[in-house]
Amino acid sequence: MPADTSAPTDPVALTAELIRCPSVTPEEGGALVLLQERLEAAGFTCFRADRNGIANLFARWGEKGAARTFGFNGHTDVVPVGDAAAWTADPFGAEIRDGRMYGRGATDMKSGVACFAAAAIDFVTQTPPEDGAVVLAITGDEEGDSTDGTIALLDWMAANGESMTHCLVGEPTCPTTMGEMIKIGRRGSMTAWFTATGKQGHSAYPHRAKNPLPAMARLVDRLASHELDQGTDHFDPSTLAVVQFDTGNDATNVIPAQCRAAVNIRFNDIHTGESLSQWLRREAQDVSRQFDILIEPRIKISGEAFLTPPGELSALVAKAVEAETGVTPELSTTGGTSDARFVKDLCPVVEFGLVGETMHQVDENVPVEQIPQLKAVYARVLKDYFA
Amino acid sequence: MPADTSAPTDPVALTAELIRCPSVTPEEGGALVLLQERLEAAGFTCFRADRNGIANLFARWGEKGAARTFGFNGHTDVVPVGDAAAWTADPFGAEIRDGRMYGRGATDMKSGVACFAAAAIDFVTQTPPEDGAVVLAITGDEEGDSTDGTIALLDWMAANGESMTHCLVGEPTCPTTMGEMIKIGRRGSMTAWFTATGKQGHSAYPHRAKNPLPAMARLVDRLASHELDQGTDHFDPSTLAVVQFDTGNDATNVIPAQCRAAVNIRFNDIHTGESLSQWLRREAQDVSRQFDILIEPRIKISGEAFLTPPGELSALVAKAVEAETGVTPELSTTGGTSDARFVKDLCPVVEFGLVGETMHQVDENVPVEQIPQLKAVYARVLKDYFA
Ligand SMILES: [Zn+2]
Ligand SMILES: [Zn+2]
Repeated sequence: MPADTSAPTDPVALTAELIRCPSVTPEEGGALVLLQERLEAAGFTCFRADRNGIANLFARWGEKGAARTFGFNGHTDVVPVGDAAAWTADPFGAEIRDGRMYGRGATDMKSGVACFAAAAIDFVTQTPPEDGAVVLAITGDEEGDSTDGTIALLDWMAANGESMTHCLVGEPTCPTTMGEMIKIGRRGSMTAWFTATGKQGHSAYPHRAKNPLPAMARLVDRLASHELDQGTDHFDPSTLAVVQFDTGNDATNVIPAQCRAAVNIRFNDIHTGESLSQWLRREAQDVSRQFDILIEPRIKISGEAFLTPPGELSALVAKAVEAETGVTPELSTTGGTSDARFVKDLCPVVEFGLVGETMHQVDENVPVEQIPQLKAVYARVLKDYFA
Repeated sequence: MPADTSAPTDPVALTAELIRCPSVTPEEGGALVLLQERLEAAGFTCFRADRNGIANLFARWGEKGAARTFGFNGHTDVVPVGDAAAWTADPFGAEIRDGRMYGRGATDMKSGVACFAAAAIDFVTQTPPEDGAVVLAITGDEEGDSTDGTIALLDWMAANGESMTHCLVGEPTCPTTMGEMIKIGRRGSMTAWFTATGKQGHSAYPHRAKNPLPAMARLVDRLASHELDQGTDHFDPSTLAVVQFDTGNDATNVIPAQCRAAVNIRFNDIHTGESLSQWLRREAQDVSRQFDILIEPRIKISGEAFLTPPGELSALVAKAVEAETGVTPELSTTGGTSDARFVKDLCPVVEFGLVGETMHQVDENVPVEQIPQLKAVYARVLKDYFA
């Protein structure tokens, strides 16, 4: 079906169509197939960059490797429904009730994908730029391990000479009011698990045992008491949360041989996963020596902190947001991780999308009126970028 | 059957007979019935001071309430067999092999009961004192909760005008060599459980949660680092062992609402259960305020510390031990709790018995030659006490 170049693409209808695709990670659910059809109809060249059973879609309009290539990034996969009985609407029904569209992915982020796809389709069909390119990199693996999602798309792009010069990720970024927040970076995230090993014994004779618990308590106290930093111009202070501490010893007359603890760190760009790993290992070693208890750390870095310093891209997006919503957006680095942490290695990247309040929850929904607003923001970004 | 007053009572045979009574707590198993028969035959007046299904035997020779009444205390109940397949002898067979008698209770403490019963029977039948009394308070509930054992016997004695002026508990007291240790007191024992309650939250936003883990780690560190005392003339330093610390949180991105920890304290007579409880509550309150986390303690005092200061009784027993074994016994307060902690409220009490190395273990056994030695010690104690 050829695109009707006279009528604008309806982002509300497209959001509803995407919600009706049951694309719970790692299922493609028809969502990327649907997008590919619409994009190809509008003149985009599409490629599937699937990996390990995960579907990923790359679409380009315009010349490969153009000096100005604007990219959108997002995901069509969604988290599971959760307590299905608690939903008041079909999670894959896209029902509209009292001005809200209900469904899994309504805010995170089928509306975002529908809006940038609709904006891109209308832009290239109605007001095509004289040069440059528009690309969409859409993954089916953001809510899962993310190992075969945007990373696979970027790998495929590098292998095929594809690129972007600036990128906008369409994740929901606004805490409560449409337009209030653009994300220009994200904190890094890492988890450290510690195992302390001593020697079991009877609690009446502690000198014959080697109790790992006081050592672990000291380590946890030291880590939790430490101020990692006071924040930066663009980042809140880094945080460390002790999330686990377990022994599994039911007896009160037995000193256990082993205990375990875990901490989760969200860190700004003062640190790297490696610098924090060194600090954690040093602290564990210090306490280990002090108590003569073996303490072994295991560390997993989920993502490094990154920042796209305020500049051309954030100014462009902020101007579009203000023009379309009347709200001056804050440039923020709060929140969890997103695929922007991968894109940042390729080009400047910022994130802007809807209000994310109900994401991952029962009865996830989006105010219908916000959808055309978001499309308008993305459309203005494209127009201004190529102006 | 009247006692044969011409022949001494064989403590080895009596130990074997007691081992063959399957008196695993709370079963009487025939052990107290057997003892009552032998004691009555020797002229003892016997009473059963049973309570809540637990059998207890009180036996007196001589005048009720005599100014000098020597008492023996012990138990016929035993801990369970444990891994029956691992035993190389019938746990209730009293088999003698290579000079050792095997069976549950061989050291803890059917041999001890047999020895003081045999010594008391021979003493009152062969060399009865002119005045004074000999009493035996034998319980069937020492290895269990101890709530209806020696306590019930003491309650019964108080209610019936019975008493003792000095008491010897026949528990195994020697670590490795027969004769090396008399116990003149015991440390107290108590356990405190702490529950810290905060507010659950996402580990990316620790300021929105209230994490109970750092508070508990601080409390545990403070308690474990605190020197309770440096010991006394008769006691080792008191000890505190952290035995539990648990959260039960599998997620690393969730700050848990609650965690629990437990400490076990073995304390000397510088402290009381109450003074330590106050200290524990104060520490918990301090940390609670500091971290704004609710920390609730629950405390159970299993036994207070007590000491029978070296004097007439310990000198009497030490002299008998040295005369019969050639070993000069140490006056010690080490080890766990025993029923002496109840008897101490009635009269001076010390403990002396066999080597306890195999108690509560698979293949519990006693060197046969130690049994007549122990009987001889008890016999000499009686002779010297009434001399
Ligand atoms: Zn998302
Ligand atoms: Zn015992």
